[in-house]
Amino acid sequence: MIPLEYSAAVDAGEAVRGTTSPNPPVGCALFDAGWEVIATGGTSPAGGSHAEVNALDAAGERARGATAVVTLEPCNHTGRTGPCAQALADAGVATVIYLTADPNPVASGGADYLREGGVDVRYEPHRVDALQPWLSSVRHGRVSVTAKFAASVDGFTAAPDGTSQWITGPTAREHVHEDRAKRDAIIVGTGTALADDPSLTARWPDGTLRENQPRRVVVGKRKVPDGNLARLGFEQYATPEEALRALWETGARDVLVEGGASLTTSFLALGVVDRVQAYATPLLLGGGRGVLAGALAQSLPGAPRFELTGVSVLGNDVLMEMERTCLQA
Amino acid sequence: MIPLEYSAAVDAGEAVRGTTSPNPPVGCALFDAGWEVIATGGTSPAGGSHAEVNALDAAGERARGATAVVTLEPCNHTGRTGPCAQALADAGVATVIYLTADPNPVASGGADYLREGGVDVRYEPHRVDALQPWLSSVRHGRVSVTAKFAASVDGFTAAPDGTSQWITGPTAREHVHEDRAKRDAIIVGTGTALADDPSLTARWPDGTLRENQPRRVVVGKRKVPDGNLARLGFEQYATPEEALRALWETGARDVLVEGGASLTTSFLALGVVDRVQAYATPLLLGGGRGVLAGALAQSLPGAPRFELTGVSVLGNDVLMEMERTCLQA
Repeated sequence: MIPLEYSAAVDAGEAVRGTTSPNPPVGCALFDAGWEVIATGGTSPAGGSHAEVNALDAAGERARGATAVVTLEPCNHTGRTGPCAQALADAGVATVIYLTADPNPVASGGADYLREGGVDVRYEPHRVDALQPWLSSVRHGRVSVTAKFAASVDGFTAAPDGTSQWITGPTAREHVHEDRAKRDAIIVGTGTALADDPSLTARWPDGTLRENQPRRVVVGKRKVPDGNLARLGFEQYATPEEALRALWETGARDVLVEGGASLTTSFLALGVVDRVQAYATPLLLGGGRGVLAGALAQSLPGAPRFELTGVSVLGNDVLMEMERTCLQA
Repeated sequence: MIPLEYSAAVDAGEAVRGTTSPNPPVGCALFDAGWEVIATGGTSPAGGSHAEVNALDAAGERARGATAVVTLEPCNHTGRTGPCAQALADAGVATVIYLTADPNPVASGGADYLREGGVDVRYEPHRVDALQPWLSSVRHGRVSVTAKFAASVDGFTAAPDGTSQWITGPTAREHVHEDRAKRDAIIVGTGTALADDPSLTARWPDGTLRENQPRRVVVGKRKVPDGNLARLGFEQYATPEEALRALWETGARDVLVEGGASLTTSFLALGVVDRVQAYATPLLLGGGRGVLAGALAQSLPGAPRFELTGVSVLGNDVLMEMERTCLQA
C-alpha cells in the first residue's frame, strides 16, 4: 500500500494520464515538515515541463527545505526540458522520495545526481497504477495494450440475436468513459466500426465530451462508411502490427483495444496484451457472441494467464483488472 | 451494514449452516448492559433446541436483564421444541432485537408475545446471509438452489482439450469446500459423475473431511459406475424436478448445483436458481467448455438477471455472489 500522505503525488500523476505520451504521467507533491502539501504538479504534454518542475514553479520559495514525493525517479536528462534532478537540487529541496525507478537508461541517474548534491534521496518502491502502461511500453519497446470487454459472467458480450447495448449498468459505462480519457488511443476492428457506428469518444454521463479525447483507431481493411467516426476523424490501419507500429512512432504509449472479438483475439494471439479490463455483469446468457473469436490454446497450461491487480464494484457490475504475468516479446 | 456488536449473533448462525435444515440456521447472542457478550447459541440439528434456548442455557442466571440479538424473529410455535419467545420472557431477558421477520405464519407472532410480556422488542431489518437460502425456500415452497461454477473471465470452465483441473487457485478451492460444508446437498449431473469421479465432500486443504458433509446427489438416468461416489454413498434422481421434490420432502432446504453445464442449464431453465456463485479466474481461453450448455434466451431482456450481493477476492480469483432479482415460481 502506498502511504496515504503520498496520495497527493499519486493523484497529480493520475490526473494527467492520457495527456503526456510519449512521456510518462508522473506526479510530484512538495510537503513541509508536517506533511502538509505545499504544491503539486503533473507532467505537462510532450515538450512542456515535467511534474517536478511544475510543482516547484507552484511552490516558489516555499520549496526550500521541502520533501518532494515523486512517482518516478527524477530524470537526469536534458531533452526538450532541463533535468528535473537539477531543478530539485537548485530549489533547495531537502528530501526526495521516489516510488518507481526509471527504467530508461537515458533518463536515469537522477537519484545519484541528487545524492551527490547533498539531497536526502529515498527509493520506496510502490506500484503506481498511472505509470504501469508507460513502464510496459519502455520494457517491451512497443505500445502498451489493454484489452477491454464487458460480458455476462458466463462470457457473452451479446445475446444470440445480437442485442448487447447496455449489457453493463450506468456506473460501469461511466467508468469506461473515464478510462478512455486516460488513454492515448481507442482501437476497434472494422467489424465493430461497421456494425455499431461508434463514436469512440470519452464522454460525461450527459453525453458531453470530456476534456481529453483519445485518438480513434480502426484496424482492418474494410472501408468505414460515413458515420460518427468519419465525422469525428479517425485513423485506419490494415493490421494490428501496423497499428502498433504507427501508434508507437507517433508518440502513443497506452492504448485500449475495445474489440470486437476478432480484433481482441488477434492482439492476444500476437502476445501484446499487457492488461485486461473485464467488466462482468451478473447475467447468464448461455449463448451469443463470445468475448473472443476463437481458442487461444488447446490446453489450459497454454492459455494466457494474468495476475489480478484490482477488483471494483461498479453499481451492479464488477470490474476485474488483470496484468499479464510473464514478460512478452 | 449490520452493527458490529451484533456479529456475535450473526456468527453463531453462520456457524451452524448446513446442520439445521429444515430449520433455519439462526444465531442468538445475549449481551450485558455494556454490550459484552454473555453467551451465544445457534440452532441445533432438527429436533434439538433453537438458537435462543441454547444461548439461554449457556447464560443461565446471567440472562436476566440481558439484551438478546437474534438473527430471526423468535418463534411462537410449539413444535418439537417449546416456543422461543416464551423461553426468552421466562428467563427475564429485557430487550430482544431481531434482524429478520419470520415469514412462516405458523411460527411468527413471537415479537407480539414478547411485547405482551413486557419485553422491549425491536425489529431492525438487516440482510443475514446465513438465512437467505432458508428464506427463499419458505417463500417459494421448494428447496433453495445455488448454482456454482468456476470459469475463466471469458466464460470457459475447461480448455478445448477438456483440461480444467484447478482452473482456480487454492484460496478459491478452499472457499468451495467451506461453502459445501454449509449446504444440505451437492448436486451434479451424471456427465460430471462419469467424467470426473468426484467425491463431492467438504474437505480441508490437507484432504481430511470437514465436520459437516452435505448429501451427495446425482441427477440423470445413466448408471454411475464404481468410484468415489459409490464408495461414499449418494442419491440419484432422474430429473432436476424429481431431485428437488425428494430433497424438499426429506428436509433439505439449501442445495448447491455444481454442474456440469447441462445440469446447471436445466436448473436455470426451470427458473429455480435463486443464487449464483461465480468464481472467475484471470485467464482467457477463447474456446472450450462453456459455463452453460445452451442459450437461455435469444435476446438480452429475456435472460435471467441477478443482483450482485457480494464480491470477494480469493487469492488471484474473484468470487461474485449473485441473487435472482425477481421472484420465481
